[in-house]
Amino acid sequence: MKLVTYQLTTPFAENRIGVVKGDNIIDLHEAHSTLVKLGKLYHPFLLPYSPMEFYTNFQQHVAIAEEVLEHVSVLPNPFPYSFLLDEVRLETPVPKPSKIICIGTNYADHVKEMGSKIPDYPVLFSKFTNALIGPEDAIHKNVQTEKLDYEVELAVIIGKEAKNISKDQAFDYIAGYTIANDTSARDLQKRTPQWLQGKTQDHSTPIGPWLITKDDIEDPGNLNIQSYVNGELRQSSNTKQLIFDIPHLIHFISHLFTLEPGDIILTGTPDGVGMARNEFLQDGDEVTLEIEGIGKMTNKVQEE
Amino acid sequence: MKLVTYQLTTPFAENRIGVVKGDNIIDLHEAHSTLVKLGKLYHPFLLPYSPMEFYTNFQQHVAIAEEVLEHVSVLPNPFPYSFLLDEVRLETPVPKPSKIICIGTNYADHVKEMGSKIPDYPVLFSKFTNALIGPEDAIHKNVQTEKLDYEVELAVIIGKEAKNISKDQAFDYIAGYTIANDTSARDLQKRTPQWLQGKTQDHSTPIGPWLITKDDIEDPGNLNIQSYVNGELRQSSNTKQLIFDIPHLIHFISHLFTLEPGDIILTGTPDGVGMARNEFLQDGDEVTLEIEGIGKMTNKVQEE
Repeated sequence: MKLVTYQLTTPFAENRIGVVKGDNIIDLHEAHSTLVKLGKLYHPFLLPYSPMEFYTNFQQHVAIAEEVLEHVSVLPNPFPYSFLLDEVRLETPVPKPSKIICIGTNYADHVKEMGSKIPDYPVLFSKFTNALIGPEDAIHKNVQTEKLDYEVELAVIIGKEAKNISKDQAFDYIAGYTIANDTSARDLQKRTPQWLQGKTQDHSTPIGPWLITKDDIEDPGNLNIQSYVNGELRQSSNTKQLIFDIPHLIHFISHLFTLEPGDIILTGTPDGVGMARNEFLQDGDEVTLEIEGIGKMTNKVQEE
Repeated sequence: MKLVTYQLTTPFAENRIGVVKGDNIIDLHEAHSTLVKLGKLYHPFLLPYSPMEFYTNFQQHVAIAEEVLEHVSVLPNPFPYSFLLDEVRLETPVPKPSKIICIGTNYADHVKEMGSKIPDYPVLFSKFTNALIGPEDAIHKNVQTEKLDYEVELAVIIGKEAKNISKDQAFDYIAGYTIANDTSARDLQKRTPQWLQGKTQDHSTPIGPWLITKDDIEDPGNLNIQSYVNGELRQSSNTKQLIFDIPHLIHFISHLFTLEPGDIILTGTPDGVGMARNEFLQDGDEVTLEIEGIGKMTNKVQEE
């Protein structure tokens, strides 16, 4: 299932949860409530329309969403709460996660190009939510940086509170997967030993275009992953090159602190970043990220 | 003014904003609403009782709170929404800030004891909100760490959205000050180049006991600051030893990303941490932090 957070382009529009079906987005709250009214589904409560509420109780809500999808042919045709993907604005799937956890130096080739060492443990850093933008938004280039860089990453979204989880159990705690650009202002990132200050510029980090629920990805540890700048291939790898794979990361992190539904883990980037060729993003550049089984996301760069 | 986030000890109690007056906490929402009913104050809306709402529009709310305090003698006596400090539970002033920004290596003596270098720029890292606890709570010691350490720090809480702020304007954006223990699991902090994984254990980081509004601290750049473990003095310095002072930090950070009301900046710790003497916190230890003009906070350490 492809879950989106979307907004109509009308005044006072709010973020709402929808599901992608072909070229359309169906509003999940409205579809569910219609099916309940028609007597096709029975539920003691209606699906929330708010993304944060949806993710807070993800597993229960996504099970209901699956039932909605099974009955979608019963909905009135045309269904007034179905919209063309082109006529709405897509937002980042989880607009206000309680944590954005980034993994550094997690592809062997990228470790080499950055002159780093293969780490003994996953390297964790973070971004704040002010950095998050949607899949159609422009990446703002802060005036403080001359070295803005892209990093395509597979993002894992947590679906259930996770504390002290074993590797075997890890997949039970995943909501699904999406694409992230862990944009990095290299000059700011590298001027102190801690990377945070180069990683969390306002309006810098697109995540999207949608959440692919975990059952729709057979093996997240074997997905081709690419980035392009102005159409030119820059990064090309496969998630099987991850030094620490997804079960390892969830095991590792959940022993350090509790993961909550909606938390986002950016699993690291392969080689081919701009830093390695000393070529950085400029106003007007277009960055396209692609991950097999998830999709594509293109964002323009815009001087702030 | 001393602002607290407090909770009654009754079932279903919620976090509420109060003001400390002697040994009492007066509920601000109830005091304001009583004064409006008595015709002593006129306001188009009532003060929110929720801390997060209060901090979201801090400057407007604190101005009203000042009027409430001026009229406090007019309140019925006894006032049913006044409580002894001892009979309520104090919570951390801002329970869910959008950012917890920590400054590393910001006292020259501490830089020396940690074998670091005086940085050219402020060193920024972060904690997640899962780490936050109140001033009376136990510091949980995660079973992963054998080297849990204390760090007394002056915490600055932001009162107004701040982007690209000059040093001269910095104080306009401050709500006030409180005390933080930037607890650090040194073994986890140091096993990778990024400190985050040793800094954000669940239930590890007390901040409190209250917010002292900025006007009540004449010079936050000249405050004695101490920590004690089981009554023994460990850290003793003065905030005039800060390498990057508060206006510098707000200037610096607000050019990197936008600060929002309720955001917390932990300004760094002086020398005397356990790491330097290879002596770490154990189950049952009691850590007391004290900052001149703000107060004291004591937390027990508890094996998780």
